[in-house]
Order: sequence, then structure tokens, then C-alpha cells
Amino acid sequence: MEIVQEGVTAPIGFQAAGIHCGVKKARKDLALIVSDTPAVTAAMFTTNSVVAAPVVVDRMQLNRSSVMRAVVVNSGNANACTGDRGLEDAWSMVKTTAAALKIAEDEVLVSSTGVIGQYLPIDLILSGIQVAVEHLGADGTSAAEAIRTTDTFSKEAAVRCMVGETRVTVGGMAKGSGMIAPNMATMLAFVTTDARITPVVLETATRNAVQRSFHRISVDGDTSTNDMVAVLANGRADNPVIDSEQHPGYAPFSQALEHVLVALAKMIVMDGEGATKFVELRVVDAATEADAAKAARAVANSSLVKTALYGEDANWGRILAAIGTAGITFDPARVEISFGDVPILKRNYVIDFSEEQAKDVLSRKDIVITISLGAGTASALFWTCDLSKEYVAINANYRT
Amino acid sequence: MEIVQEGVTAPIGFQAAGIHCGVKKARKDLALIVSDTPAVTAAMFTTNSVVAAPVVVDRMQLNRSSVMRAVVVNSGNANACTGDRGLEDAWSMVKTTAAALKIAEDEVLVSSTGVIGQYLPIDLILSGIQVAVEHLGADGTSAAEAIRTTDTFSKEAAVRCMVGETRVTVGGMAKGSGMIAPNMATMLAFVTTDARITPVVLETATRNAVQRSFHRISVDGDTSTNDMVAVLANGRADNPVIDSEQHPGYAPFSQALEHVLVALAKMIVMDGEGATKFVELRVVDAATEADAAKAARAVANSSLVKTALYGEDANWGRILAAIGTAGITFDPARVEISFGDVPILKRNYVIDFSEEQAKDVLSRKDIVITISLGAGTASALFWTCDLSKEYVAINANYRT
Repeated sequence: MEIVQEGVTAPIGFQAAGIHCGVKKARKDLALIVSDTPAVTAAMFTTNSVVAAPVVVDRMQLNRSSVMRAVVVNSGNANACTGDRGLEDAWSMVKTTAAALKIAEDEVLVSSTGVIGQYLPIDLILSGIQVAVEHLGADGTSAAEAIRTTDTFSKEAAVRCMVGETRVTVGGMAKGSGMIAPNMATMLAFVTTDARITPVVLETATRNAVQRSFHRISVDGDTSTNDMVAVLANGRADNPVIDSEQHPGYAPFSQALEHVLVALAKMIVMDGEGATKFVELRVVDAATEADAAKAARAVANSSLVKTALYGEDANWGRILAAIGTAGITFDPARVEISFGDVPILKRNYVIDFSEEQAKDVLSRKDIVITISLGAGTASALFWTCDLSKEYVAINANYRT
Repeated sequence: MEIVQEGVTAPIGFQAAGIHCGVKKARKDLALIVSDTPAVTAAMFTTNSVVAAPVVVDRMQLNRSSVMRAVVVNSGNANACTGDRGLEDAWSMVKTTAAALKIAEDEVLVSSTGVIGQYLPIDLILSGIQVAVEHLGADGTSAAEAIRTTDTFSKEAAVRCMVGETRVTVGGMAKGSGMIAPNMATMLAFVTTDARITPVVLETATRNAVQRSFHRISVDGDTSTNDMVAVLANGRADNPVIDSEQHPGYAPFSQALEHVLVALAKMIVMDGEGATKFVELRVVDAATEADAAKAARAVANSSLVKTALYGEDANWGRILAAIGTAGITFDPARVEISFGDVPILKRNYVIDFSEEQAKDVLSRKDIVITISLGAGTASALFWTCDLSKEYVAINANYRT
């Protein structure tokens, strides 16, 4: 697997654009991704029962057909809680994009992110779509920029892998920042690939990769109304079609996809609102992978753990108490916790570490916390960040 | 029902003491509540699967007998995650208290609150118990002081009610602050009453009252290892024994108990770590009371809602998105939200309010948010606070 410093335009046959159309004052706010040829598409959406208009539209589109050509995304306004007019606006974005690209209306996905409860400045967006079409090209970075809200950097990742003798590329972009929680909700990610793959198998690969990437991150435990991951596969690499999980191409392709999704997911956490620490939780010796993930999620969602990390405090007690809320069966006396390579808690609550060593690990920006549950052999990775005063400051005055 | 400015010593036949024994540097850290005569006792404990030693001991005590005479509590150290030695220390507290009071060992409950994972300075505590016994008297406030950790004020409440011709008193004290979440976890409350009531009926009244008080508050969504509510009823009022839910004394007594528990629960929220706002959530027009409580809990536990409240931002979108994560069935387009008496969101996402009006309500310290789900006729109250920069500052450096 070869890592490439590109994004959604890395695979063959994809173009993108990111422009400023006027939803935001000055920054880019409209992105377009287009495949030269029809692309098999798999998508997953927010689990929040309050869903934004574009999510409603996309679900209808994908029920009709799993083959797409374009994704149009605006930032600055979520088009959520906007009733019938919101739905009309989302459909207008689809129709205008289809017309401008001269493709069918059922080949376009739409997405929005930003403030909830305000109507889109739809005229600006529809004019913007025309401009974006004119700017289509190999520049994936502009598109990645255009989907940012409070993100402090653009998020792109791409890798190449070999499917048999054929080089296949997977590229992606994401936006994240606040409102990142497990269970999909809470972020946008658009992934492109030139792999040839059937819809069912792409669906499986996407679901599995999301499970180990976007479902394993948490910034503040909240979930949003707009979140989605969409993967478009246009087959332009011309590899032997991956038509089952047993196909020899499935493993390299799904690993490449997982790599891109994990890379994007980690970037989302790194850019967590106000985050000062990037934390990898490694839960090991669990009875099942699901238990390991539940324990990690409980730790990652604990405000008390997250503030202790911000304070660089080796507060293993809060970690243990958080695991106690995870709803899994385990014996706290068997739990072991390390910060970096410093064992903090050993079995039977044996504590034997120097505050200096712990402080040394915790003062870094990247922290690995290993938690052994002593209950089996399964494990899970999870990524989170600390909870800082800056998080509060950013979120206290987001809307106004 | 008459409100009394007292605490656990308001009912007939209860004495208390609060002293400094040396767990903390200077502040009071050891409390004792004693009934002159055996008291029927009901208790509920944390739902966290990591439980502190005193909780283990108390469960054993109450399995043996539901009649207690004393409760001994230290603050400053939770005696949690302390293994066999922690259990021994908790038993020592029980035995020393029993010996000093000349009562049976199975008539004593024990409780601890503070830092997790350190052994109690047991010699200081055992000596302190002797001192506390000498200080027993009508001063409930010292005891309420002695169970504080990061609490900024002592929490006491008491009411009198009439059970038939007999005046019955219920008094209580609590500690709270951080780590307050629904489902009991997360606080200590000790309640005394001179009512005559059977164990089974006291259990029912306690469970119902906890359901509408401590289960309806949230500071940071975390739960702790030590939390408990205990209600001791010594029968000294000599009312006709309340022996069923149909007994005419049950309604006034259970209302009095609920009043004390709700008053203490609200104080815990008011004292939420770093809280600058006290928020009452009134969820109405729900399909069931359980749905109403779930919706309220989801709103109360959303960091995004809580930071918006801190920022005095009328961000109804975050409230709606939070309800969307509650796992209840509702139609977002039917939801209405008011801040104070200012309607913010009306049906079909109609928004028609001035930012000035909203700001006026949100700038107050006490805020009522009414959420109509438009799904039925059930309702629930819930109390929470905002998430401030001060919360982060307090929790970043608690242990060290």
C-alpha cells in the first residue's frame, strides 16, 4: 500500500472543485466532486432521528439507484430543520448540478453542513454550482477546503494498492471538528476510488471500514443531523471486478479503504474543537471486539477523563470509573492501564509510577493509553481528544 | 407541607456531627448521623459496575438487615479501587463506629467520597470517629459540611407534613458537584425521617422519589463509583404505621420525601462544577413520561447544548439535534421550544423571535426551557446546568 499526498482526485476519472459562492462571508463554501463515468456508490448516514434535508434526498436517490456521478456540498448552512422549503432547496441543488454537468438527476448526491434551522441562500448556491462546474479539475484540495466549518485544516487522504496486477487508488476528504461521536453521526466524508467493485461488496467494505474508523472516534459525544460517508467507485482502474468478499482483490481494496477512512477519522479528532491532545485508546484483552469498543467509547466520552487529559493529570481512576459505565462485564481488579509506555495501574489496583514519568507522557501532544481488561483476547482502537477551555469557548458562541 | 431550614437532625431522635479528622488538610471531612433508636432503612447505590468498598459493605449490611442506627461518611478519599485493604478499611469504619456508639455492627452504614485509588488514612479516620461521637448533637449543618468535596456550599433540606393527626418530619443532606448524571450514580444523599413506615413501603417511596429527583439531574453525564442515597426512618413521630401505598399517610409522606430529594437534587445541579446557569427542562406533550425523561436527559447531556447555554446562545437547533439522539419516536416538525416565556421554535420549524428577547432570558442565572414534543400528554422535569470554561479548569487538575 502506497500513501499518496492527494485526495478525491487521486483515483482515475475524478475531478473536483471548491469555490466561494457566498454562504460564508469570504471562505470557500461549495464543493463538487464528479466522476467522468457512472460510479457504484455506497453511503451511510447519521443515526440522529432529526435528519437534514440533503440526507432525506440522498436516501431517496440511493434507493432509486446505486450509481452516481456527482456530489455537491455546501458549507456554512446545514439545511436542517428547514421543512418543505429545505427539501425543495436540496432538490434544486441536485437538479442544477445535473443540468450543469449534463448528467441524469438521479446521479447526484447533495450534502450540507453548518448552522441548523436557517434556509439556504439558494440563489447564491445555484449560481455557485455553475461556477464550480467551470472550475472542475485535478485540484481536490479546494474541494476539501470548501467543506470546512470550524475545521482548522483541510482533511485529505489517499492510498494506492494492487488488486491483482492492477493499481487501484482510493482517495478521500472529510470535515469534522465538533459534534464528533461514535455511530456515524457527526461528520462528512467523501471517498472516491477507481476500483471496479459490485454495489453489494462495496457496501460491505464501506460498512466494515466505517465501523473501524468513524465509529471509533469521539470529540464531544454529540451527533449531528447531516452526517454522511459516501464512497464512489467508478471502475476506471479496470481491475478484475471485485464481486465477493472471497475475491482476491477484496482484502487489498478493503484495507486501502479502511486506511483512508482511518486517516480521515484521525484527522477529524486531531482537529477536534479546542483539542490540545490527540489520544489513541488501545483496549486489549477484552472478551469481544464489541466489548473493547464499548469500553473505549465510554472512556472517550467521559468529560471527566477528557478534562483530566487536558490537565495532564494521570487520573486512572476516572478511566476505570468510565469503563464501569460501559455496560460490559469485567473485573475492575484485573484492569491494567498504561500511559505511553508507563504502566500506571497494574492488577489488583497496584499503583507504582512516578508522577514525573506520567507527566512526561501526558505533556506530549500525542498520547497512547493502553487499557487491558483482563477478560479475553479481543481488542479495539479508538481515537479521541481532550476537553479544553477552548472547546467551551468555540461552542459557546458558534451560532451568533 | 412546611419547609424547615434544617437538615438531617430536623426529625425527632436524630443527632449528627461533622468534624475534621485529617483526610483533608483543613476542612471538615468526617460526618456521622445517628438515630437514638433503630431505623428502617432504604438505600439505592451507583449503577457503575466499578463500585467502591463502602458500597460493597453497605450492600452486605442491608442484605442482612434493613434496620440501621448510624451512617459514617468521610470525604477527601473515595476508598474506591483499593482492593481487599479498602474493604478492610470500610469494615473498620463500621466496627469502630458501632463500638463507639455501643450499637451492633450490623446497624452501621459507611460511605466515602473523594479521590479514587488511594488507601484511606484509616488511623486518622478511626480516631476521628471517636471525636465525632463526642460531638453528636442537633447540628446537622456540620455533618452536611463534612461530606463536601468540590461542593461550594452545604446542601440541606427539610419539610414537615401531617400523617393523619401526627406531624412527621423529613430531613436530608447531600453532596454533589461534578460527576452528576442520571441513573443514580453520582452523588451522596442521606435522609432522615421520624415517620413510622414498613421497610417495603419505605423502599417503594424512596425508589419513586429518587426516580423524580436524582435520576432527573445531570451535570456532566459521568457516573461515579461511590454514589448512594440512604433514607432512615426511626418511627419516633409515632404516626399510625404507613404499611401500604394505599395507607392515607403514604401520599403526604411520599410527597414530603420527594420534596426533600428534589430540593437536594436541584442544589447539586446549582452547584455543578463551574456552572453559571441553572436550567430547568420541562418536556411536555410526550407520548410517555419515560420518553419525556429520555428527551430531557439527551438535551441535558449534550455538551453542545450546554456550551451554547454558557454562551447565552438561543441555539434551538442543538436542542432538537440532541432530542434526535434520545432513541424516542417523535416528529421533529411538531416540536416547539420556548426559553422562559419566549417561544423560540414553533411547529413546522417556524422561527419568530427577537435575539434581544432570547438574550434577555438566557442572560439570567435561572433558565426554564420548555420543549413540547407534540406526541402525547406526558411530561417530565429535569434539571441541569451549563458547561463552562470553569468546569474544564476545575476538572483538569482535580487529582493533583
